[in-house]
Amino acid sequence: MLEKIEHLGYAVENLEAAARFYEERFGVEVGEPEEVAEQGIRAMMFRVGESKIELLEPTREDSPVGKFLGKRGPGFHHVAFEVEDITSALRELKDSGVELIDEEPRVGAGGTRMAFVHPREAFGVLTELVERPNGKR
Amino acid sequence: MLEKIEHLGYAVENLEAAARFYEERFGVEVGEPEEVAEQGIRAMMFRVGESKIELLEPTREDSPVGKFLGKRGPGFHHVAFEVEDITSALRELKDSGVELIDEEPRVGAGGTRMAFVHPREAFGVLTELVERPNGKR
Repeated sequence: MLEKIEHLGYAVENLEAAARFYEERFGVEVGEPEEVAEQGIRAMMFRVGESKIELLEPTREDSPVGKFLGKRGPGFHHVAFEVEDITSALRELKDSGVELIDEEPRVGAGGTRMAFVHPREAFGVLTELVERPNGKR
Repeated sequence: MLEKIEHLGYAVENLEAAARFYEERFGVEVGEPEEVAEQGIRAMMFRVGESKIELLEPTREDSPVGKFLGKRGPGFHHVAFEVEDITSALRELKDSGVELIDEEPRVGAGGTRMAFVHPREAFGVLTELVERPNGKR
């Protein structure tokens, strides 16, 4: 069911400082910032092999990433696995009794369809499933 | 410098229960448990694309993963990025003032050479660099 690690999400307090660190120290190329108003974040990302790292800065303290930062401080926030068919993946998980945050896929950055599994189920790791848009890798 | 996500390490309380969850719910194939006495862990792992997920159960409360579990509970523990030449990567990082846990590479599971960057530097994410053994992928 899991095709690859699509991305890791890191919660940071200062997007530009984190981006500069990864550019200067690890030689990666970080893209332009993108705001996702619905999720209350600004994001910048860079590629590592077939995966991406998404740096996430909250735009509101009461957004999910804002609350996470307030409680735990900066660090790893979530992992996203690519699946071929998110609708059937969610149905299988639900049928086997796995608690989901999103029982139906919603639209994420770049037009992907995505959903979160509850971190309680996945041994404390907030786990996203994401289906790539038709034909895109 | 960063070739791919080599693996993610998840701290778990019960290795077999976590392995069963990923096998049954996500259809992955989990390998045999391996004990790394020096690090005070038992580990089981599975592949996702070009990366691996390592499930880590402490064998001692005072091991790094044991202390992490006691303080933060189960969840994401570290990310490991593959680099081509760990000696030169560590030298570059050190020369640019990045705080390292391991200034010299040590030998990790499967004969790899690895080292940790301090999580304070990498915005709260415990970050490992790992060089694959000669010619192996």
